[in-house]
Order: sequence, then C-alpha cells, then structure tokens
Amino acid sequence: MNIAVIGTGLIGGSVGMALRGKKISGRKIRIVGVGRSPERLNLALRLGAIDEWTLDIKAGAAGADAVLVCLPVDMIAPTVIRILPHLKPGAVITDVGSVKKNIVEQIEKLSGNLGKRPGGGACYVGSHPIAGAEKTSVRHARGDLFRGAVVVVTPDGSSDDEAVKLVKKIWKTTGARVFEMSAAEHDAKLAATSHLPHAIAYALVNSVGARDFRFAGSGFKDTTRIASSNPAMWAEIILANKKEILKSAAAFSREISKIMRAKTTKALARILSSAKKKRAALGRSSP
Amino acid sequence: MNIAVIGTGLIGGSVGMALRGKKISGRKIRIVGVGRSPERLNLALRLGAIDEWTLDIKAGAAGADAVLVCLPVDMIAPTVIRILPHLKPGAVITDVGSVKKNIVEQIEKLSGNLGKRPGGGACYVGSHPIAGAEKTSVRHARGDLFRGAVVVVTPDGSSDDEAVKLVKKIWKTTGARVFEMSAAEHDAKLAATSHLPHAIAYALVNSVGARDFRFAGSGFKDTTRIASSNPAMWAEIILANKKEILKSAAAFSREISKIMRAKTTKALARILSSAKKKRAALGRSSP
Repeated sequence: MNIAVIGTGLIGGSVGMALRGKKISGRKIRIVGVGRSPERLNLALRLGAIDEWTLDIKAGAAGADAVLVCLPVDMIAPTVIRILPHLKPGAVITDVGSVKKNIVEQIEKLSGNLGKRPGGGACYVGSHPIAGAEKTSVRHARGDLFRGAVVVVTPDGSSDDEAVKLVKKIWKTTGARVFEMSAAEHDAKLAATSHLPHAIAYALVNSVGARDFRFAGSGFKDTTRIASSNPAMWAEIILANKKEILKSAAAFSREISKIMRAKTTKALARILSSAKKKRAALGRSSP
Repeated sequence: MNIAVIGTGLIGGSVGMALRGKKISGRKIRIVGVGRSPERLNLALRLGAIDEWTLDIKAGAAGADAVLVCLPVDMIAPTVIRILPHLKPGAVITDVGSVKKNIVEQIEKLSGNLGKRPGGGACYVGSHPIAGAEKTSVRHARGDLFRGAVVVVTPDGSSDDEAVKLVKKIWKTTGARVFEMSAAEHDAKLAATSHLPHAIAYALVNSVGARDFRFAGSGFKDTTRIASSNPAMWAEIILANKKEILKSAAAFSREISKIMRAKTTKALARILSSAKKKRAALGRSSP
C-alpha cells in the first residue's frame, strides 16, 4: 500500500508518522513524501515521517494507491487536478483542507464529477482532520496528533463506495474518529466551531490598543491565542467559507446582544450559566 | 501593621499568603481574616493565608491599619460603607473589584467623598489586581499569585496622598507592578481587555449547538475557556461596566467587519498579520 503525502509539514508529517509501517487490508503502508525542497524532505525522512521522497509530483502520484494532499487550502484543488491524470486506476486522492465545498466545486468545475471513477480512473474524496496548531513545520509533527481527534470525510452522492471506504480506513489507522457528512454541512459546522473563532481572535487583538495589553490577564491571552495562527492560511480559509462564517457571525451577534440586553444580575447569570454548563461538556467530549 | 482581609477566597487568601510576615515601613504585617464561615477561616489559617480570624467584621476592621475587601463586586460598596465608621483614624480601605467607577460612585453617594479623610477619618482607595482564575476557593490561593501581575490603583483628585501611598506599598509588597489611573480610565481599559472577552466567550459557546462541539478543536477550547468563569460574578461585572463594554464591543465589531469585508487574500492576510504581530508582543509583555 503506497501512500503519497504531498506536502510534509505539520499535518503531512504527522500523517506519515501515524501510518508508516502500519497495515491497511493486510498490506503494509509505505509513505512517499512529495515536495519541492530536498532539505525539508530529508528532514521528514530523518524524523521518520516518510520512507522515501521525490521532487517529481507526477511520479510520486503515479505509484500511489492513495494520495494525501497536505497543502494550504488554495493549493489543494489545482494540485488534485494536476495529478489526477497520472494516478493509476482505482487510486484515491484526499486532502486535509479546513474548507471543503469550495475545493469540491473547483475540482468538479475543472475536471468533471470526481466522486465517480469514469472508466475506472482515480477519484477524489475530501477530508478534514480537526487537529493541528499554529505550528507548521514537520519539526512539530507527531505520530499521535490524530489519536482521538475527529476527521470529517465528505463524500457526495456520487462518490465511489470503495474510495470512501479506503479514505476512512486511512484515517482510522491514524487513530482518529471518523465522521461522514456533506461538504456543505462540514463547512457550516466548521464556520461556527473554528473559522468564526479565528476571525474573533484576530479582531479582538486588533480592537485593543497595544499599550493596553499590560492590562490583559490570562483570559485575554487564551481568548486570542489563535490570533497567532498563520495569516495567509487563515485568509484563504475565511475567504473560501465566507458565506457560512457570516451566518455563524450573525448567530454569535444575537448571543452577544442577549448578554448586553439582560437587565438584572439574575437574568444575565442565567445566560452565562447555560454557557458554562455547555462548555463543561466540551471539556469531556473533545480530546 | 495589622491588615484585615475581608473574604478569604482565592484572591483574599493569596493576598494574605503574599503579605504575611513581610514588613511595610519597618512594621511587620499581621493578617486578620474576616468572614462568615469558621470552617473556611480555619482552612485559610491552616493554609497559611492569615494569622488569626474573626467573624466580627466591625472588630476586625477596628483593629486594622489597612482593610482589603476581597468580596464579589456587588458586595464591595455596601461593605466599605458598613465598616468605615468603625475604622481608626488614618486607616485605609481598598478592594479588589474588577470594576471601579460604579463602586466609587456608590460609596461617594452613600457616605460623601471618601478620597479625603474628613477629620482624620479613614479613607477608601480602589484597587484591582489583574490576576486570578476561574477557581474561587482559598484552596487554590498562592503566595506568588501577584508576582509580576499588574495591579491598578484608582485614586481620584481628592484622594489622600498617604492613603494612596500605603495602598501602593501593600500591592508592591505582594510582588505586583502597580499602575495608577482614574476609575473611569480603568473601566474603559478593562472593558476591552477583560470584560468584553468574557462576554464573547460566553456568547460563542451559546452560539454553537452542543452536538457540534465534537467538531471543535483546541482553538475553540482556548477561545472559550473563560466561559467556565463564575456566572454570578461576571453578571455583576458586565452590568456594572455596561457602558464601556458596549464601546469596546463597537470597536470589536468594526474589526470583525474589516475582516469580513476584505476581498482578496492579500488584503485579508495583511489584517490578520497585524493582529498576529500585536499578539506576539502580548506574549512577551504580560506574565
């Protein structure tokens, strides 16, 4: 089972470490790293993230049973389209992008419906592992990054069953809990749980004068930690899922208004209390 | 130097631990805990937060050179007004409330201008140590809670110089960095750096369906951590500083709009990048 990992950063490197040497359907996994920098690929090799590497994306893809595109959101669709013609029949491509609808639409527009395998060709099925951090380098990659983490797989109605099964098996092999839903549903959920919170963290930092940071305690620090995330990457994500983020922002805005309009301590404490209770459940249900 | 600590929870207990046995102007500090529960006061005694305790608030205050009111925001002004007549001439009262203007106004309204010492009486000077956590019990108190932390002291134009000096000395003795500003200025700054972030955290949790928490990563968790804070306490703070919080909310809303209106990756990345840079400074400047 040859798996090509295109892009061996934090996520690609961690996928490689999690899968290397394991088996899927009795076949031992071998990881081929694909990238542009021999230095970075050698580092990934030394750190145990890959078994071998190539700078030739077409050759790397041609030999693979599965391809994982671990690149920034805006590079996923172009890369999938570029390598599709070179994949062997029955091979599957997936990705790790934090938005899905936009990527699926770009791929469909440029190369027809990829959920099917026309003439036994390769097919694309979207994935999004909800794991990672502000760090981006393979230096921070960890084989247990996905253990217990949630991975969303987003087939559409016409997706090939075998391809979806293989993608799910790959993620389960990393130790992740796999959920299946449509790309649109994924984007709506992630707008609320990830994309809007990032926009809020960035906006909150920008709304406070730098000189007043001395009056910020640990609460402000936690609330804005993700404003240290990669700006280019998050600019892409926010633009790609703008419509759903605006819907989540409207829901958030209604909740802020409820807090601001509460007239008595009792009424306001009730609103805050319901949040505290919900938040406690989060502590238990998410790793 | 007798210091009475009214309310020996996380903050009162930590102040006691930080001050006990130290000296101010050559006089050794002795901490008298004042509370309503013998069990809690005995616990504070065992944990080394106080030297002795009393349930009699008037007796505790009467023997003190300085009184620290470490109670929830809504109980501070009534307590200050209650004990003022019992304090000895030249004694000072301060507090640890997260809002200041509202407290000062209540005290002034009910007992005249307390910044002065009419006839050599006692006087009130507001304080706010920016430290603490969601925890509230003396069990979590630590003698180093204020080391390097910022404490804002809020005299007004008519405050007695000696009283302000003593309050600042007390906080410096805990290891804190002391800043002086008006109550109004304090409330405007804290609305932005603490009160609005709390409202945001609570609102963000309430805007997401509990079932979707499984799709929340570490970013959502950090951004909403302070939604685990005490609801009754934060209801009081938000109501007491509503006007300034609404101003901060408007500034925040403008920054969210800038992010949502940005049309290109480059323009949006520039906005997010400026937040990331500002946020990095916070990591260095705040303990």
